[in-house]
Amino acid sequence: MLEELPTLAHLLKVLQQVPYLASKNLYRVAAHFLEMDAQQIAQFCAILESAKNKLKKCTICFYWQEVSAECVFCKSSRRDGSTICVVETWQEILAIEKTKGYIGLYHVLGGSISPLDGIGPEDLTIDSLIARVARGNVKEIILATNQTPEGEATATYIARKLKGMNVAISCLARGLPVGSSLEGMDRLTVFKALSERRPF
Amino acid sequence: MLEELPTLAHLLKVLQQVPYLASKNLYRVAAHFLEMDAQQIAQFCAILESAKNKLKKCTICFYWQEVSAECVFCKSSRRDGSTICVVETWQEILAIEKTKGYIGLYHVLGGSISPLDGIGPEDLTIDSLIARVARGNVKEIILATNQTPEGEATATYIARKLKGMNVAISCLARGLPVGSSLEGMDRLTVFKALSERRPF
Repeated sequence: MLEELPTLAHLLKVLQQVPYLASKNLYRVAAHFLEMDAQQIAQFCAILESAKNKLKKCTICFYWQEVSAECVFCKSSRRDGSTICVVETWQEILAIEKTKGYIGLYHVLGGSISPLDGIGPEDLTIDSLIARVARGNVKEIILATNQTPEGEATATYIARKLKGMNVAISCLARGLPVGSSLEGMDRLTVFKALSERRPF
Repeated sequence: MLEELPTLAHLLKVLQQVPYLASKNLYRVAAHFLEMDAQQIAQFCAILESAKNKLKKCTICFYWQEVSAECVFCKSSRRDGSTICVVETWQEILAIEKTKGYIGLYHVLGGSISPLDGIGPEDLTIDSLIARVARGNVKEIILATNQTPEGEATATYIARKLKGMNVAISCLARGLPVGSSLEGMDRLTVFKALSERRPF
């Protein structure tokens, strides 16, 4: 039936490429855009385009920076340059910054090693990370990749690369999430919480 | 921390207004747009703008139609003009059409009566529906509003308006979804399935 409404079909097709807009939500998002007036659409597009023009990746940590300004982390005098937290994507930095519990620097890998998706170590910013460590001053690398097979494999790969470089390597603590109950937790998390238990 | 990245903050803010993009998905969708190249963004924006320019609402049923073409339902000789299925939004039409089990016409209300949101009957296309019925030829109105308090109230309101207009009024069957089990179903659905049972 959408064959007779090519413009609507086209809109749905382009929205389908946006992640996290599957099936029925897709139509509701399309309805949202169709209900916008011409000015709102122009504004939305202007913001998309300015994001493309005004943001670039920091050449050191690969987090986003305004083209007109310096990297909020790498160029800050308030951050501790001796620690680098390695994450897969820039979104993870937002999650860590929200805790207000970390004052070191970051390194965005740009993904994780995933042979099935054709992503090898050379597609990530691992070489730049090694170069950062080689320049000295770095005392600790925190591997904060995701708890997925790909994330763990990436962490293992980086740890092996950093071997012998006189830098401490750590990873995030695994265990029970705050506020959780043992009953509702998956087996592997309970196992990790048990095997990696610490003095009370 | 996003205060120092106004362009990124701006992008996140505008994406936040899109429905079904809550919390963490928001960042992933932002990442999707940031990874697009300039040409892809231009194309995306062109489609959004053309959807605005090339689609308009049918003046009879309020479904979308191409500006350059006629309404795929109201102007079709293959549809049965004696039956009108009343839905809240155009997305519901897509769901009904997918079944290939309906050949009548439609009427898009544009929402449901919701005093809490300040939406009264006059904000919907109910008057146009009454006018369609008053013009004659319509034998049956199928009230297919959602199974929500607002949807039910809207159906009741329309049914009362249509009283004495010599038109049959029906609503969708309520009961167990195909493939469901009694055990997993909510109480009200089981009650409806029981009280509206039919001969085997």
